[in-house]
Amino acid sequence: MMIVMKPTATQEEIDHVIARVHSVGARAHVSKGEEVVVIGAIGDREHVARLELEGAPGVSQVVPILKPYKLSSSQLRPGGERSVFEIGGRRIGGEHFALIAGPCTVESREQVLETAAVVKDAGAAMFRGGAYKPRTSPYAFQGLGQAGLRLLAEVKAIHGMPIVTELMDVRDLEAVLEVADVIQIGARNMQNYTLLAEVGRTGCPVLLKRGLSATLEELLMAAEYVLKEGNEKVILCERGIRTFETAYRFTLDLMAVPVLRQLSHLPVVVDPSHAAGRRDLVAPLSLAAAAAGADGIIVEVHPNPEEAICDGPQALRADEFAEYAASVERAAAVAGKAFTTA
Amino acid sequence: MMIVMKPTATQEEIDHVIARVHSVGARAHVSKGEEVVVIGAIGDREHVARLELEGAPGVSQVVPILKPYKLSSSQLRPGGERSVFEIGGRRIGGEHFALIAGPCTVESREQVLETAAVVKDAGAAMFRGGAYKPRTSPYAFQGLGQAGLRLLAEVKAIHGMPIVTELMDVRDLEAVLEVADVIQIGARNMQNYTLLAEVGRTGCPVLLKRGLSATLEELLMAAEYVLKEGNEKVILCERGIRTFETAYRFTLDLMAVPVLRQLSHLPVVVDPSHAAGRRDLVAPLSLAAAAAGADGIIVEVHPNPEEAICDGPQALRADEFAEYAASVERAAAVAGKAFTTA
Amino acid sequence: MMIVMKPTATQEEIDHVIARVHSVGARAHVSKGEEVVVIGAIGDREHVARLELEGAPGVSQVVPILKPYKLSSSQLRPGGERSVFEIGGRRIGGEHFALIAGPCTVESREQVLETAAVVKDAGAAMFRGGAYKPRTSPYAFQGLGQAGLRLLAEVKAIHGMPIVTELMDVRDLEAVLEVADVIQIGARNMQNYTLLAEVGRTGCPVLLKRGLSATLEELLMAAEYVLKEGNEKVILCERGIRTFETAYRFTLDLMAVPVLRQLSHLPVVVDPSHAAGRRDLVAPLSLAAAAAGADGIIVEVHPNPEEAICDGPQALRADEFAEYAASVERAAAVAGKAFTTA
Amino acid sequence: MMIVMKPTATQEEIDHVIARVHSVGARAHVSKGEEVVVIGAIGDREHVARLELEGAPGVSQVVPILKPYKLSSSQLRPGGERSVFEIGGRRIGGEHFALIAGPCTVESREQVLETAAVVKDAGAAMFRGGAYKPRTSPYAFQGLGQAGLRLLAEVKAIHGMPIVTELMDVRDLEAVLEVADVIQIGARNMQNYTLLAEVGRTGCPVLLKRGLSATLEELLMAAEYVLKEGNEKVILCERGIRTFETAYRFTLDLMAVPVLRQLSHLPVVVDPSHAAGRRDLVAPLSLAAAAAGADGIIVEVHPNPEEAICDGPQALRADEFAEYAASVERAAAVAGKAFTTA
Repeated sequence: MMIVMKPTATQEEIDHVIARVHSVGARAHVSKGEEVVVIGAIGDREHVARLELEGAPGVSQVVPILKPYKLSSSQLRPGGERSVFEIGGRRIGGEHFALIAGPCTVESREQVLETAAVVKDAGAAMFRGGAYKPRTSPYAFQGLGQAGLRLLAEVKAIHGMPIVTELMDVRDLEAVLEVADVIQIGARNMQNYTLLAEVGRTGCPVLLKRGLSATLEELLMAAEYVLKEGNEKVILCERGIRTFETAYRFTLDLMAVPVLRQLSHLPVVVDPSHAAGRRDLVAPLSLAAAAAGADGIIVEVHPNPEEAICDGPQALRADEFAEYAASVERAAAVAGKAFTTA
Repeated sequence: MMIVMKPTATQEEIDHVIARVHSVGARAHVSKGEEVVVIGAIGDREHVARLELEGAPGVSQVVPILKPYKLSSSQLRPGGERSVFEIGGRRIGGEHFALIAGPCTVESREQVLETAAVVKDAGAAMFRGGAYKPRTSPYAFQGLGQAGLRLLAEVKAIHGMPIVTELMDVRDLEAVLEVADVIQIGARNMQNYTLLAEVGRTGCPVLLKRGLSATLEELLMAAEYVLKEGNEKVILCERGIRTFETAYRFTLDLMAVPVLRQLSHLPVVVDPSHAAGRRDLVAPLSLAAAAAGADGIIVEVHPNPEEAICDGPQALRADEFAEYAASVERAAAVAGKAFTTA
Repeated sequence: MMIVMKPTATQEEIDHVIARVHSVGARAHVSKGEEVVVIGAIGDREHVARLELEGAPGVSQVVPILKPYKLSSSQLRPGGERSVFEIGGRRIGGEHFALIAGPCTVESREQVLETAAVVKDAGAAMFRGGAYKPRTSPYAFQGLGQAGLRLLAEVKAIHGMPIVTELMDVRDLEAVLEVADVIQIGARNMQNYTLLAEVGRTGCPVLLKRGLSATLEELLMAAEYVLKEGNEKVILCERGIRTFETAYRFTLDLMAVPVLRQLSHLPVVVDPSHAAGRRDLVAPLSLAAAAAGADGIIVEVHPNPEEAICDGPQALRADEFAEYAASVERAAAVAGKAFTTA
Repeated sequence: MMIVMKPTATQEEIDHVIARVHSVGARAHVSKGEEVVVIGAIGDREHVARLELEGAPGVSQVVPILKPYKLSSSQLRPGGERSVFEIGGRRIGGEHFALIAGPCTVESREQVLETAAVVKDAGAAMFRGGAYKPRTSPYAFQGLGQAGLRLLAEVKAIHGMPIVTELMDVRDLEAVLEVADVIQIGARNMQNYTLLAEVGRTGCPVLLKRGLSATLEELLMAAEYVLKEGNEKVILCERGIRTFETAYRFTLDLMAVPVLRQLSHLPVVVDPSHAAGRRDLVAPLSLAAAAAGADGIIVEVHPNPEEAICDGPQALRADEFAEYAASVERAAAVAGKAFTTA
């Protein structure tokens, strides 16, 4: 932590800051420039974090030096190795690219089985599908719930694909754990800290979506809530952020891919469907994500998008999926990655 | 719902849209312009909402006509009356301005009792204090929990002030209800839909903070989750949004005050402390909020901010609070409002 | 400038940074923490600004310590005095609040003379009106040009009000200077550096609007372009920024008012009309701006907004202006300011 | 234009809107829904644009139906052909991918000639270099000006590469035209309308950068200013937008690539250097841009970035450029494009 004093700071104010640094058990390192004094607070990061000197008399600026996250940080791996997770025989991370595909919402037995057959054939590594759906409107369909989970269990039994499904409420944890190989935490729950801690205690891999206006640092801090409980398997997911642009639902932030891969050892996947909200943008965004170095893509597919209960306009058509998957595989290859297989 | 067709749309594509509109039980009203055809879908809004024609062949744009919220809408009150809630003898809404003050976090008996005495004397209507704290870092202090709730109960018993305190986890609902007169839902939980539905079932007044990147429409949809369960007492709270500006923690959006008051009959309060993150900005922002027509302010106060466990830099000093409250009262008067009293 | 090294930085990388600091004539002040090394570059700020060490081997972060602006900085006035400008007998800055009012666009002799009579009677200090209009569409009305300037000259001759009018093109500078008491630089030209330098050479007061996504630091740097040429009279103007919110055209950032007044000695005014784009929001936003401590408001008024050539929906009605001005005066008084008079 | 009335609108208010629609020579098409009335204004788009009914009594919302741009619109080419420009023997647009490379700023004869030799060999189609530099700080290096232009002329004479260079001030137009094959308009000048009109009158191809917070519609409207003067050769450039994220300088918006290509027939290029501000992000972002379907990339290269006068940290190293170019070529191939050659 560096505390930058104002040019007008008095010696008394400087001494007060130094005393405060000492009071949390840290050392103060004073550096006098031409115009201002800068005080470095050196010591245990937890203690230093408690200084709260913003706005103190004579203080101009407080600049954190150390990243606030630890377990998710790439510094945890001095050799630079990347985390690779094995999930139901598939790998994600490092050179392994995982295509995760399926419908937005679980609607019926036919829908999920038909979709699973198509995406598996095309090279998808895992199957996604929502039983509990967070909806902006309380009047909208909220998911099939436990019946939906049972249909996902059938997909797994028949097609042998690992299942990715969303958890919204701690009270559903047990039921979700019975079928999920990866628990998805949605963007709107990225900072639902009690939910994060609970999934952290399970050991089940977690796919953590970036909040609509979460910084990368906040995403890594959210991952830290899971990791801190002993669960090492967190997959980070970029899914579009809020900006001023109204031409699309969200703005997919593909810079997050190389930067997260630099800041953290955790795998990074991209969800192009929710960002775009429109089918025709899903393919170009998927190619871009793969070329940027993503460790996977999570995408929505439906046998008949016009009849989908939710988010039909953004779902890829099942009969066009094989071609889509082949092009994503070529783009991943440009970034040095290969599709993972069972 | 208006469906705007592309200039290149074929008659077949237009007919397909019309058929789709009929299929959800709505009427299609076709309007041919010089360059494009626009199709109005007229019927029950729930049905129309299921059309999902974005990106359908020949469709350029889908424009919703009706607001997606109902119970929170000002249209619920054709006469234009505003909701006024009576909480522990204080009023909020209409001409009644409620100053809600107290520490960020409940730390000790002395701290809360001393602060409560000060803010009550200065004209505050309610006491705020957090027992459960959402923290960005899992390594930070997470609140006193139930011990904190007991201290708030003491404040209420001794000073007779209604208590505003935050709920983060449905499993703490019962404990919180024992002391809270108003349950606060934090910005990061604004779209925690299962939590919203649960507090909706209690009937206890709710102070609902706007998410960091939530539109006003999304805030009203979140309120709708509470109202739909039969709880009519929702207070909306603007607390700063995420923007590109780095000179402050969040950008307080005071346009939200008059616009929310136009869109909705619910009271609107402003939290200047979290937006600013700095004590010196709290007073000018509070005056601005009151002059803009807010129905109240929720503000952080601490007897000794330098020793505060959390958010000390943004807390007003207890010994300067009376002067602050007096200036807020003058600004509220400019907007035609008076402090509510017990 | 503080250069924060990565935890993995080698001694060679550290030495390279130190050598680079020396190479620009600055001193290097090395501070070794528990985990990282921080190097302070101490010396002339122009030299230090040329370091460009971002992304150099072993460098984690480069943190500027000194503000990049000087002449606009409040540090120029160690005693804390605020700049007060006298313009055509009116004052702005310090305790002097200037209400600047008039139509968006100069349309006709009747329009400007009628409006000027109304706003002058109501206490407005200056008259605003555009002869050159920056329009998003090349097909929209672009202003009356020189004919518009002549009408403004008439307003000045008849009503004795100082004139505020926009300059878009350096080639119009001479013509504009003949009538303008204050040259307005629009938001879209805030970083038109050659235009800024030219008005800097004139000595004519400048009202500089904040760009749609300009940080406060960038606004002050733009002011610096004018001040550097010897023109001391720059008035800063907040007029709304771009955010994700779609309920209004722009989001008026009233935090900019107290923060700019802290960072700079220059007067700060607010334009509520362009932010809102709607008449009904102009009054509450104006009250909020005045209560937040603004040094003035620049607002659009039209005798018959329905017939206005541009921006009619946001113009106050001339016959309601006196009441509006009286309420703004009350809000300014809450912040300790009084309307300036001729 | 659709005018959505409030549910509370009176017949008189509806009639007033209809009369206003007629007054601009348009037809009014009234559509009565269950809850609200919607009035379509049908007629010449220029006339309809003058309605300005926002905020009129009884009016809830005004929804534009037609895009405000025409010449830049893909609707100009009903067959869907894309514009392909031939510039100095190279092609851009359609299946032709143009790599445009060179230093941020022209510094010296050796620097530009050495860089040109390297980038030409690696397959770059054009050479970029700035003689006039827009700088946030008035104290920073502002470019070599005319001396810089002369050095660019030498590059052209010796290496035969078309030159892309920036114009900031209409008064430099003649000098720039002597050497430029493509005139670059920077992000901060995207809405400098008089500058746009002037380059529109020249017929010289224009590379138009998107403003930091410009919507795609505004970018296309800015292009329209150029096209309207008879200059058909506008290349659109995405270079990063302002968002809340602080981990990078700007957020590169790659969704703009497929969406602009849908809205417009004009070529779309991406500038990864300015968005990133860091060399290590340039390659992954370039691959992503090419895979997303961009028609080209404009990128900064320097023989010795550590010694660059400006923006060294984001410049690719000349000796690594060939490898970079080869990977970009592979990514472009995934999107069906090939490098253009002389």
